[in-house]
Amino acid sequence: MLTRMSSLFLRTLREDPADAEVPSHKLLVRAGYVRRVAPGVYSWLPLGLKVLRNIEQVVREEMDAIGAQEIQFPALLPREPYEATNRWTEYGPNLFRLKDRKGGDYLLGPTHEELFTQVVKGEYSSYKDYPVILYQIQTKYRDEERPRAGILRGREFLMKDSYSFDLTDEGLGESYARHREAYVKIFDRLGLRYVIVSATSGAMGGSASEEFLAESETGEDTFVRSPESGYAANVEAVTTPAPPEQPIDDKPPAQVHHTPDTPTIETLVGFLNAAGLGRTFTAADTLKNVLVKTRLPGAKDWELLGVGVPGDREVDMKRLEASLAPAEVALLDDADFAAHPFLVKGYIGPGALTANGVKYLVDPRIVTGTAWVTGADKADHHVVDLVAGRDFTPDGTIEAAEVRAGDPSPDGAGTLVAARGIEIGHIFQLGRKYADAFALDALGPDAKPVRITMGSYGIGVSRLVAAIAEQSHDESGLVWPRAVAPFDVHVVIAGKNEEITAGGEQLAAELEAAGLSVLLDDRKASPGVKFADAELIGVPTIVVVGRGLASGLIEVKDRRTGERTEIARDTVVEHLVELAGKR
Amino acid sequence: MLTRMSSLFLRTLREDPADAEVPSHKLLVRAGYVRRVAPGVYSWLPLGLKVLRNIEQVVREEMDAIGAQEIQFPALLPREPYEATNRWTEYGPNLFRLKDRKGGDYLLGPTHEELFTQVVKGEYSSYKDYPVILYQIQTKYRDEERPRAGILRGREFLMKDSYSFDLTDEGLGESYARHREAYVKIFDRLGLRYVIVSATSGAMGGSASEEFLAESETGEDTFVRSPESGYAANVEAVTTPAPPEQPIDDKPPAQVHHTPDTPTIETLVGFLNAAGLGRTFTAADTLKNVLVKTRLPGAKDWELLGVGVPGDREVDMKRLEASLAPAEVALLDDADFAAHPFLVKGYIGPGALTANGVKYLVDPRIVTGTAWVTGADKADHHVVDLVAGRDFTPDGTIEAAEVRAGDPSPDGAGTLVAARGIEIGHIFQLGRKYADAFALDALGPDAKPVRITMGSYGIGVSRLVAAIAEQSHDESGLVWPRAVAPFDVHVVIAGKNEEITAGGEQLAAELEAAGLSVLLDDRKASPGVKFADAELIGVPTIVVVGRGLASGLIEVKDRRTGERTEIARDTVVEHLVELAGKR
Repeated sequence: MLTRMSSLFLRTLREDPADAEVPSHKLLVRAGYVRRVAPGVYSWLPLGLKVLRNIEQVVREEMDAIGAQEIQFPALLPREPYEATNRWTEYGPNLFRLKDRKGGDYLLGPTHEELFTQVVKGEYSSYKDYPVILYQIQTKYRDEERPRAGILRGREFLMKDSYSFDLTDEGLGESYARHREAYVKIFDRLGLRYVIVSATSGAMGGSASEEFLAESETGEDTFVRSPESGYAANVEAVTTPAPPEQPIDDKPPAQVHHTPDTPTIETLVGFLNAAGLGRTFTAADTLKNVLVKTRLPGAKDWELLGVGVPGDREVDMKRLEASLAPAEVALLDDADFAAHPFLVKGYIGPGALTANGVKYLVDPRIVTGTAWVTGADKADHHVVDLVAGRDFTPDGTIEAAEVRAGDPSPDGAGTLVAARGIEIGHIFQLGRKYADAFALDALGPDAKPVRITMGSYGIGVSRLVAAIAEQSHDESGLVWPRAVAPFDVHVVIAGKNEEITAGGEQLAAELEAAGLSVLLDDRKASPGVKFADAELIGVPTIVVVGRGLASGLIEVKDRRTGERTEIARDTVVEHLVELAGKR
Repeated sequence: MLTRMSSLFLRTLREDPADAEVPSHKLLVRAGYVRRVAPGVYSWLPLGLKVLRNIEQVVREEMDAIGAQEIQFPALLPREPYEATNRWTEYGPNLFRLKDRKGGDYLLGPTHEELFTQVVKGEYSSYKDYPVILYQIQTKYRDEERPRAGILRGREFLMKDSYSFDLTDEGLGESYARHREAYVKIFDRLGLRYVIVSATSGAMGGSASEEFLAESETGEDTFVRSPESGYAANVEAVTTPAPPEQPIDDKPPAQVHHTPDTPTIETLVGFLNAAGLGRTFTAADTLKNVLVKTRLPGAKDWELLGVGVPGDREVDMKRLEASLAPAEVALLDDADFAAHPFLVKGYIGPGALTANGVKYLVDPRIVTGTAWVTGADKADHHVVDLVAGRDFTPDGTIEAAEVRAGDPSPDGAGTLVAARGIEIGHIFQLGRKYADAFALDALGPDAKPVRITMGSYGIGVSRLVAAIAEQSHDESGLVWPRAVAPFDVHVVIAGKNEEITAGGEQLAAELEAAGLSVLLDDRKASPGVKFADAELIGVPTIVVVGRGLASGLIEVKDRRTGERTEIARDTVVEHLVELAGKR
């Protein structure tokens, strides 16, 4: 059905909304695609809903193509299944919780592992039933601390989530591979530039996991890659190659030095270099020990943890948290230091930690035989040439130090460069965590139960609208890829005389009859206003019916390149059908 | 894409679910269309989701056809707009309320008048912008006290709600009429038997209002109709024709009688008939006065109200509540009687009410000149020949008495019969209530503001799945109308030999290629199990590929009539395409 600008529920805005910082947010609001209702909660106006549905359809087709079956769970969920997996508690303030009129506890589903596991347990019993992949495209809720960038990180959002159920690890591997291929097809069809990065699992728990990140400066996720090898990973998933161990015998003995007025690594290095020790020290020669406390889910008490990293690097809290998940991590406060007087703030060394039973984990670069300048557990004192494996023995290694551009790639090929991206998809081998929680077994051929193994796979459908807009816009407005554009063609009637008006109406009708979806600008506004709106709205092909019509010509403009072509009226329908790829 | 029973996520059940009372609930669960997650909260399995989507599509097409524009609001909504209309409070325990992590008040939208009004106010300003009709097909939440019958009355459900915005009352009338026509088309396409009844508005407030009720014994809504005239109305909307007034002069004077041991109307009538008064009394000659208390929204105190109805009828609380809405109504408790000693329980007459300033409303049958037996405001005493307009003067009339089969039709033609129905649609002229709450004005041609008038129109989309199932099933299972069936054809491979299996596969592939959606039963199960499942699932046409194939014959069974036809293999595809109406 022909859509007319004269009656379309759309009013474009000239000004950016006050709360918008990123281009997609500004443009989606200005072009009338979405409207804010509350922080992170948006309405979809007609154009926005069309784009959302187009994306949904691409996702649905590719999910169906791998044999996934669509179902739909409610968003309002009882507490019990989430209690069984401890996520009622673990989700913390990110979970929207509510009570019904009888006082029963409910939540708004942030993700549906529990429900999918239960439904499969309810329907299936034999090994012959497996494998199965189920999915839904459904509204989810997370009470984000900082909803941002319009629909990019909302509190109510549309997701495709799917789950695979297999009898064996190999089966899970196959289901995972099928999803990976489907995701590649989906994001390719949507015209996105993206990378697939190794990822840690965050709160999900489990093993193999990859994220699909749409490249974008406004993305929240930092990732690194090696242009040489194609390696790409979330910063949390980067593993630090350990250097070779060094001989201990040739190292001088550890020596404690009085190092007054050296509160920073920089001042410490300066002091040592001025002290005439016959060597030049850099920050990389120092060992910085950061104290945190950790607590496992459900545990009452915090435990101290010492983390040692080379002094030229900061501890990256996101990497530290990912390494320690599902345990919580917090920095020490003054009360903690007061309660543990052996911790001499600013001068903590491995010695006091080990002597007092504090767990001590170090960066993988701190291998046996390496010598370090570090705290001497005494105010204003540091120790030089404290050798790992001789003077101290850490309890293990931990990925906690910041990753930097220029670091060697973990795959051994080239060095890393940093980039930012928007997480648009996540595929994840859950394993048996949820099957264990609900005792999801299949009766095997030998009548013995086989515990099912699961995969979990998500695509942020509403977020994709913003991610595509981030990658595909210019200073005049949005530039939709054909697969998701709200219309195939935007016909602008540029002129007020009867012939031009009738010509525009006629052309629009012919295009609709030829199977194209058409937005016809039949308003009384000036051509300038109409062109500006067409650029802002971002339909891929803009067709101008104007003065040229008298000479049998129609202007066809490519929104992306700006290229204009005059096409003969009698071939323009065919031309546009071809452009739209509908032939 | 061909759907195979061998891999479809479906396990049919032989037993009715324990909590199911109505046929649609039993069958939708047994046939694997839906599964319960919590009271009134259901999951949609593959077959159910297909039916739901088919219904959604019919609704969408007819809404688009009247020029309505689809948008989508969130379900998670901030308190403020609902505070502005007082519905945050008025909805009482039916509203799911929750707090976000910052303590902000939110609700799960039970209906979206506020949001639609606000969005139009945000986008539109001139009279030239109007009229406009907006709609959404969206998940809604109501914390029903008694969710029942599976998806028939759920707490999370899918609704189409639309709203019209007009400059004038005439415009609203037109928008209303267009919705009425669209609803007729929708319910006709869905193959429903339904009536359109005049309705009161309940908590919505406003004027013209009609309900679409699917006829069904299991429906919650009682309605009445006059087979003679076609009049149909919700019981709440029935108006009682008032009889002509009677002369007062010829009535004997009122007389108080000692009437011991007459606690009921029946015993009272018996006593009087035995008392030798020279007349025969019936229950219809008595006047029953029921005391209730009412309270307007926001008011602190309750007010007493006396309701007088002929003694042969009960007070229908739903009719009474509808008449008094938006005020609350409650029965008196012992404390209320104790606080008002002039109320002599069992013997309340009009006298004490009027004398003590209690508002007194009566059934429209109690007209001037009618004489009644009623309470004498004294224990064990009644008064006979108390004449309206002479001995008491009510403060007005009220529709509160029960409506009965056999009552005269309010339109003067014929008598009423009772029926039950499921509310599937509601159209409603809201008027300016919400426009007033949000000051929704258009700037008129004279630069003066024009207050917009609105209509509100709802269809219970998920409820329709159950309503259709209620009307369309038999003892073997569901019987879907073609427009909503999950598949066009259910092909059963009835036999295990290779030829039959290959023949079934080949036919299914040809049918899919011809544009039909096919469910192929390729399981290893016995033909009996397959036939029983086919009947239960309810696809309109069941095609059996069995022994007949050897002689070039395919059995085609009509699920509704049970009729079986043998069709030649080489014409069967064409035959089925025609049956499915795809040609």
